[in-house]
Amino acid sequence: MDIFVPFDAHDPKSRLEPPLSAAERGSFAEAMLADVIDAIEATGHAPRVLSTAPMDLSVPVLVDERPLTKAVNGLFKLTEGPVAIVMADLPLITPEAIDRLVSTDGEVVIAPGVGGGTNALIVRDRAFHVDFHGCSFRDHRTIAERAELTVATVDSYSLACDIDEPADLAEVLLHSDGRASRWLERQGIVITESDVGRVTIERTTMD
Amino acid sequence: MDIFVPFDAHDPKSRLEPPLSAAERGSFAEAMLADVIDAIEATGHAPRVLSTAPMDLSVPVLVDERPLTKAVNGLFKLTEGPVAIVMADLPLITPEAIDRLVSTDGEVVIAPGVGGGTNALIVRDRAFHVDFHGCSFRDHRTIAERAELTVATVDSYSLACDIDEPADLAEVLLHSDGRASRWLERQGIVITESDVGRVTIERTTMD
Repeated sequence: MDIFVPFDAHDPKSRLEPPLSAAERGSFAEAMLADVIDAIEATGHAPRVLSTAPMDLSVPVLVDERPLTKAVNGLFKLTEGPVAIVMADLPLITPEAIDRLVSTDGEVVIAPGVGGGTNALIVRDRAFHVDFHGCSFRDHRTIAERAELTVATVDSYSLACDIDEPADLAEVLLHSDGRASRWLERQGIVITESDVGRVTIERTTMD
Repeated sequence: MDIFVPFDAHDPKSRLEPPLSAAERGSFAEAMLADVIDAIEATGHAPRVLSTAPMDLSVPVLVDERPLTKAVNGLFKLTEGPVAIVMADLPLITPEAIDRLVSTDGEVVIAPGVGGGTNALIVRDRAFHVDFHGCSFRDHRTIAERAELTVATVDSYSLACDIDEPADLAEVLLHSDGRASRWLERQGIVITESDVGRVTIERTTMD
């Protein structure tokens, strides 16, 4: 199956500044994208990047300058058969999680993200369309139900854990040894514990 | 398999105040515990509550007043054979996720929690001990490796999503229709969307 990975080539991951600078956000976003592409390739499925600007990658890049929702709905018109969408900011992703996503039955299959998002999606019927604005997990279920399509969800933390906020960087360091994790280590980003509550990160070196 | 669910009967879920009062935190914690017990019973495994105080429940309650780490390590001495520990604050839990946990091979099997925690655990070798202080996911892997035990992890968002902070309540409303979710609805807790970022909650009614 073709698995499309949308990528915002302009100003990605703005909520990660600080601790990252604008240039660093770009590098980190590309490292996460590479982790996602690596995991897809390990499954034998075909990664395709849906980018807002041309990129020099080893996999095919489809350029669509429009915002995410319009670009993905446009993709549904350009393609036939089942389509998979997997977000680019999922560096915890594993080939096993992708296999579980792709092998889940349902006309629409959703892997929810932390905070109401949609982090991965299989669409097997073009009566569905996406709307990534707002609480997209809930909205996508509603859209599918109105079109009388069967909806299934995938229970995966590696797919749920998108990297949007500084505390999320701790998850990358804890659960991945891929490119994004090694990139963070090189920037001196380390996990800090608190006596109560969840771990977060701090930056031990300054450029 | 016996599945033990530790429960703090004194002052549970303190980081949920506000929006919840102390009395409400207690009721909500019991609703979450009931969801976890229901899911375990649906798998055919035997739920056992490990509580800091006596409780009137339909399942056996083992009382140990000590902090979590000491109580769980004490449990390993009281029991024989594989032991499962599942936290009480996992209202998104499903029978399928518990089945996946229990059927995962490994002398130690860990379901990580958001922020470095350990939300569920299978221990098949008593050379292991727990330490829930700090970044317990990392610490538990280290403890297992030093004892030369095999460690496996379970990739489940329903097990990863413990309910500690107000924003976590949105996950309950989004992904569960169990007792904890219905309890929140009765208190007037609703999901609020923001233009950017993750959803959170607000309280629409006051007592």
